[in-house]
Amino acid sequence: MTAAYQKACRARVDACLERFFQPPQDDLARLYQAMRYSVMNGGKRVRPILVYAACEALGGDAEQADNAACAVELIHAYSLVHDDLPAMDDDDLRRGQPTTHKAFDEAAAILAGDGLQSLAFSVLAEPSAPSAETRLRMLTTLARAAGPEGMVGGQAIDLESVGRQIDQRALESMHRHKTGALIEASVCLGALASGRADDAALAALQTYARAIGLAFQVQDDILDVESDTATLGKTQGKDQAQDKPTYPALLGLEPAKAYALDLRDQALAALEAFGERAEPLRDIARFIVERRS
Amino acid sequence: MTAAYQKACRARVDACLERFFQPPQDDLARLYQAMRYSVMNGGKRVRPILVYAACEALGGDAEQADNAACAVELIHAYSLVHDDLPAMDDDDLRRGQPTTHKAFDEAAAILAGDGLQSLAFSVLAEPSAPSAETRLRMLTTLARAAGPEGMVGGQAIDLESVGRQIDQRALESMHRHKTGALIEASVCLGALASGRADDAALAALQTYARAIGLAFQVQDDILDVESDTATLGKTQGKDQAQDKPTYPALLGLEPAKAYALDLRDQALAALEAFGERAEPLRDIARFIVERRS
Repeated sequence: MTAAYQKACRARVDACLERFFQPPQDDLARLYQAMRYSVMNGGKRVRPILVYAACEALGGDAEQADNAACAVELIHAYSLVHDDLPAMDDDDLRRGQPTTHKAFDEAAAILAGDGLQSLAFSVLAEPSAPSAETRLRMLTTLARAAGPEGMVGGQAIDLESVGRQIDQRALESMHRHKTGALIEASVCLGALASGRADDAALAALQTYARAIGLAFQVQDDILDVESDTATLGKTQGKDQAQDKPTYPALLGLEPAKAYALDLRDQALAALEAFGERAEPLRDIARFIVERRS
Repeated sequence: MTAAYQKACRARVDACLERFFQPPQDDLARLYQAMRYSVMNGGKRVRPILVYAACEALGGDAEQADNAACAVELIHAYSLVHDDLPAMDDDDLRRGQPTTHKAFDEAAAILAGDGLQSLAFSVLAEPSAPSAETRLRMLTTLARAAGPEGMVGGQAIDLESVGRQIDQRALESMHRHKTGALIEASVCLGALASGRADDAALAALQTYARAIGLAFQVQDDILDVESDTATLGKTQGKDQAQDKPTYPALLGLEPAKAYALDLRDQALAALEAFGERAEPLRDIARFIVERRS
């Protein structure tokens, strides 16, 4: 069930995303190619899947969640393109393929990332099912999660922490910004897109999202230690080699694994009041700590 | 009158912009410093002035235009930070000061730019005077003007045109994207912020904005040839040295000057149906072709 649901969501959001990459005129062809290359790359689409699953958990249709699903993936894709740049993490490979600045060039990668961020806000502002007020709330949620209070702030903290000893609290603050904020926003946007989110549901979903966001990061760190480069699609052991703080380094490998499982259980507990319709959200919590890449 | 009006707008938007640069926590201090450095740098604030002037031309208050004025300046500031990067235009000076990647470092400059773009959409989504529908229309306008169909696309075309012979039509397409789109959006956002923009007014203002957008660029090219580095605050003759296409190179210096004046007159003609309240907009059209830096 999990695999089929995730595959369906992936196919759905990929079909929706394709429409962004038709260049409106010839002299923009290369920019649109670079944007498409950065997005249509076989990504796992974890964030769009969360959007769809959260919308469904409140009884909404997938169609209502399409724009939000695209928006969070566009933000995620832009962040990867910029994070991979030589001045940032300096990565040559992403999902087994050359990173955007390797396949094109640095200027194209900077601009592709910038353009993808604009597109994310553009699609969320488009006329769609939820009320205008709800769409504005979704825009505010995404802008905060993506910006200096969220993801961009997390990347800044991350860069400054390289080569430094930091404690678990500082590590979690970094991850809560860098990856947690957008994962939370994905769940929140899906819930809002359903048009049926009350404050209690949003609060429970936020607790769920915080737990899986952290679990996702802990598992990423574990995979960076355990997987080989072929399975991972990026250079294995890279975080360790760059002396980046990781959960296995801080807690030890086995305690890090136990922590990931504990976070999964916290996420599942937050969904107790939800019925059968939240099963996809529960599956995602399980999947995050079981995945091998 | 012109100078006083522009000074008042500048002071007003600068005061509004300051609120974005308070770091919410200590480990984000450097990122917020880099963002503040990139924005609070004595910029001319041409785009915010256009927002205020367009809002006023339709009988709106300055207060209604504050969020839009901030948003367009945040977009403009982010674009300058990224355009100055070594992989892009590789500029060391901006308004006589070290560019953001020189004052901080490249990673900080990339992130500061990314964060400023998010902030622009965040502030425009905030509760404010116009209806939710109007605010969504403003968001769509800004996202399109900033993104691959607009400013980002223009920078991509610009980078590809370096060292190539292009004709006036191709040069104008590049500038219409690179600077024209955001100038048009500034005028449109100001008009929408007034809550009193009908289709006829928006069409006239768009004609005005297109003409001054182009005039602004023609004058920029003229200044790049004529001014010295101290007056200009950036390296003089840089476009020429980089073999970038410019109006003086394409048309000759004197015909380029005549073209700038012709565009100013087109802009003024578009405002004929507007009364006294459009005087600030008229002043800006005159100012753009008379400025020396």
